[in-house]
Amino acid sequence: MGKWDVLAVVFLAMMVMLIAEAAVVKYDWTVDYITASPDCVEKLVLSVNNQFPSPTIHAMEGDTLVVRVTNAIPTEGVVFHWHGIHQTTTPFFDGAAYVSQCPINPGETFTYRFTVERAGTYFYHGHFGMQRAGGLFGSLIVSISLHKEPFAYDGEHSIILTDWWHKSIYEQQLGLTSIPFRFVGEPQSLLIQGRGSYNCTGLAGVAPGSLNCIVCNSTNPLCAPHVLPVMPGKTYRLRIASVASLSSLNFILEGHTLTVVQADGRYVKPFQVDNLNVYSGQSYDVLFTTNKEPSRNFWAAVNVRGRKMSTPTGLAILQYLPNPATLVPLTPTPVSPAWNDTAASVAQAKMILAKFGYEQAPPLKPDRTVTILGTQNMVDGHIKWALNNISHVARPTPVLAALKYNIRGAFDSEPPPDFPIKDYDVFAPPPTNYRNATSGSPVYVFTKDSVVDIIVQNANTLTPNNSEIHPWHLHGHDFWILGYGEGQFDPEKDPAFFNLVDPPVRNTVAVFPYGWVVIRFIANNPGAWPFHCHIEPHFHMGMGTVFAEGIEHIPELPTQTLGCGLTKRLMRL
Amino acid sequence: MGKWDVLAVVFLAMMVMLIAEAAVVKYDWTVDYITASPDCVEKLVLSVNNQFPSPTIHAMEGDTLVVRVTNAIPTEGVVFHWHGIHQTTTPFFDGAAYVSQCPINPGETFTYRFTVERAGTYFYHGHFGMQRAGGLFGSLIVSISLHKEPFAYDGEHSIILTDWWHKSIYEQQLGLTSIPFRFVGEPQSLLIQGRGSYNCTGLAGVAPGSLNCIVCNSTNPLCAPHVLPVMPGKTYRLRIASVASLSSLNFILEGHTLTVVQADGRYVKPFQVDNLNVYSGQSYDVLFTTNKEPSRNFWAAVNVRGRKMSTPTGLAILQYLPNPATLVPLTPTPVSPAWNDTAASVAQAKMILAKFGYEQAPPLKPDRTVTILGTQNMVDGHIKWALNNISHVARPTPVLAALKYNIRGAFDSEPPPDFPIKDYDVFAPPPTNYRNATSGSPVYVFTKDSVVDIIVQNANTLTPNNSEIHPWHLHGHDFWILGYGEGQFDPEKDPAFFNLVDPPVRNTVAVFPYGWVVIRFIANNPGAWPFHCHIEPHFHMGMGTVFAEGIEHIPELPTQTLGCGLTKRLMRL
Repeated sequence: MGKWDVLAVVFLAMMVMLIAEAAVVKYDWTVDYITASPDCVEKLVLSVNNQFPSPTIHAMEGDTLVVRVTNAIPTEGVVFHWHGIHQTTTPFFDGAAYVSQCPINPGETFTYRFTVERAGTYFYHGHFGMQRAGGLFGSLIVSISLHKEPFAYDGEHSIILTDWWHKSIYEQQLGLTSIPFRFVGEPQSLLIQGRGSYNCTGLAGVAPGSLNCIVCNSTNPLCAPHVLPVMPGKTYRLRIASVASLSSLNFILEGHTLTVVQADGRYVKPFQVDNLNVYSGQSYDVLFTTNKEPSRNFWAAVNVRGRKMSTPTGLAILQYLPNPATLVPLTPTPVSPAWNDTAASVAQAKMILAKFGYEQAPPLKPDRTVTILGTQNMVDGHIKWALNNISHVARPTPVLAALKYNIRGAFDSEPPPDFPIKDYDVFAPPPTNYRNATSGSPVYVFTKDSVVDIIVQNANTLTPNNSEIHPWHLHGHDFWILGYGEGQFDPEKDPAFFNLVDPPVRNTVAVFPYGWVVIRFIANNPGAWPFHCHIEPHFHMGMGTVFAEGIEHIPELPTQTLGCGLTKRLMRL
Repeated sequence: MGKWDVLAVVFLAMMVMLIAEAAVVKYDWTVDYITASPDCVEKLVLSVNNQFPSPTIHAMEGDTLVVRVTNAIPTEGVVFHWHGIHQTTTPFFDGAAYVSQCPINPGETFTYRFTVERAGTYFYHGHFGMQRAGGLFGSLIVSISLHKEPFAYDGEHSIILTDWWHKSIYEQQLGLTSIPFRFVGEPQSLLIQGRGSYNCTGLAGVAPGSLNCIVCNSTNPLCAPHVLPVMPGKTYRLRIASVASLSSLNFILEGHTLTVVQADGRYVKPFQVDNLNVYSGQSYDVLFTTNKEPSRNFWAAVNVRGRKMSTPTGLAILQYLPNPATLVPLTPTPVSPAWNDTAASVAQAKMILAKFGYEQAPPLKPDRTVTILGTQNMVDGHIKWALNNISHVARPTPVLAALKYNIRGAFDSEPPPDFPIKDYDVFAPPPTNYRNATSGSPVYVFTKDSVVDIIVQNANTLTPNNSEIHPWHLHGHDFWILGYGEGQFDPEKDPAFFNLVDPPVRNTVAVFPYGWVVIRFIANNPGAWPFHCHIEPHFHMGMGTVFAEGIEHIPELPTQTLGCGLTKRLMRL
């Protein structure tokens, strides 16, 4: 039996699995550091069961996932956030440290148990400090029977993308909160499914990440590029997710057109691209057909956009069977659109529309509208990111527990301020009266089942003529993206252009430089849900907040989620 | 006013302080990483209030110390152990993670409050994972009025010694628990009061740690050697403590005889040495007279003994005022006795006797005798250290809480095994039937006020012809050292030679290669007290256990010490 026959059998077996009934799917995990060389440079990497990336979870729509996590790190806590899973009725298993639960202490075992309600391409990752950037992430694939999908394919692959640093996350974190500020800098490499190529072992004079470097490393068992084996003349589904710490990524499958069919696990009106922007926190499902020259392999490539690229292209191998995986393409590595071609980025974002008949249209009006201005500011001499001039700091009591058990002092009881956005020049660095922000941890409280609009307004950073991309992610929800715009949002004129017919439904939306986005969601999931920029350094520097809703409907919390901060007050000795 | 006048005024002021009443002494600490260059090589270092070493605590005998600790590390827990302080009635403030308390989570504030009952030279340090080796330590000086001391002096200094690695403790910890085992290796440098000299900034061809390297670095504000200013013709008290991670240290004050007057804060019969062995976890108070050539300065030096020295001498400057501190001695760096001259080490240890009239003699008989054989073993393919073939693993529930609130499953309820030591050949690697140990967390329970003897028996490691020094430290107690011996302890013959008249009283005792030591203590301090080898890698590899006593007298525990592991069961929602 040849390799491709094996592959066919595996795929058939997967389809058989998919026909089975909703099940309880169990995983038993141990988290610890390992020594790994994702890009041929050895460093300490956070791992699950000694694997990097952490193991891919496979489940079917409606299954219950039971993940038993034992923390074997000597002194660090951990949590796992199941990115894109709504945790309906189980908000305490959302895995956001100090929002939904206490960190899992070293030596402790914690069991997540939740339903995966909707098929799609998801992922999970550490959500404490910058542990995601430390390597704590993996894919979470929720399937349904193929015949229920509105498209057909012969096989599938899944890849998770990230950017990668050689400095430890401890050093990165410290630099971000130090005076003077020490930025993490551009990543050393880009990883596709945990593999990149920085160090060219055994070859002198070969540039890190260059084609020759990849060729050189292609047989190195520690860091050979990831391989996507395909049979010629077939259609494949490729599941792509980005857990990048900093970078906006652009994915290219050399010579192959990508038909985008899902975004963040939600159906979109299919559209074709040659290159795909994937912002951190987003996933895409694309179809491609293996109709190219079958005697060679092709590049799967990822480049940085949105920041001036100094990191070599991340590369994997699209292997046309029966070519060997080590048959490295001799073609140049794919080139993405110019890093600062924001118009191209916006245009692609606007191509994403909900698939008719598969997604509901949003309610026509919000019950409440919140404006969030995200700016770079100073707090006590530190560079921070702030929302309406409040830079978020996590306090050591889970917000969910504080709400449920009415524990005072766990977060700032003052509601977040409404920002006089009309006075604010988004094209200039913060003026004197807005330059200094304060630290805080206010929580937005929404009435259950109310329709909420969030206007996220981007602006200039502290540096003149500079504005950054921020991929905003909401826990516990998908939201409709009603509109994108440039400059300052105009509440009088802009709503007239909102898409209320087929806006895309997602959990993460990129807010472009100097731009705004308006999202709408229904506050129908009792719990406390972080809303934050998915860029690790930005969130670590305060770019986030918490949305709470249906407080009176929050279920009793499992004691395993408690024990830290002011929840110690719940002890009865 | 000259420098020496300032010094005299400071010393007078200190004496005035010492005459004051017992007081409440408050400290407000924030723990976080800093970037520091203790030996001129930059790395992340654990710090209190951005200081390394952490601040020196000054208090008077009988004072109450209140130390409010805020953990600002993003993802790591911390605790502080007050080494040598007995914590009578406050066993929950002993600061041993998972024995006396839960780790202080990131963002939490924890307040230690305890009495320092006895004057002496103590210290404090992190007691979670290998955070002490990561730099989390400082001095704790408890004074009494000078006229109450049985010796006189004109001024005093305090230094804390350690060995230093450039690898992070994360990497060190991972290597120690990996297959294959990766040892931490010999330290890169030795630090006196947080200063060493590895990197010779600006001088080509100068060996790390060499005399020229020190000269070169002597004006570098980041890593200039520590300076001990003295006036000629005076007598000084020097407080010396070692928090070394691995190394047995030997201290020399060039050209000056040291008169040892205290060990671990307890009075000893004064004796004179030219060099002083200080094992990790021990402190000594020595007197010296500044009667040497006053036109020059002298070396304060520390060398490794007990392991073949590959680390350069650690150096500080004994500054004879008014010479400038930068007047580096041109004399060779002091040389310590041969690293493997165990006889010299034992002989010096045997010079230490309690000062007549200042320490009580021990009870003549024990109520219970426990034999502990410390060996190097294999557990599931990992190299470990074990006590009676059980390698200690910390479980995530504080033993003290489990005992107080009768929480089952927190530790192994089976008592530790009595080991058939008569059958064991301490001069050979573990035989087949003892080579493999098991992991566990048994607790020794002693009857309140009973007299306990512990026979600590050393043996050959897994490597033929190799046995190591282990400094054993007991929390919550000082103990009498009744005797040292070589080879296998003979319960029939050896007790006849016990010193029951003036044995030294200490909290840490070195057990020499292939040797044994017998200690006696009274189990009169209700609580749970770690008894462990003070070498960080050894303890991390399982060389420790817990002694519990007077369980029924353990006071109610502050809720701030709880919340982790099975103490979550104490939640009443």
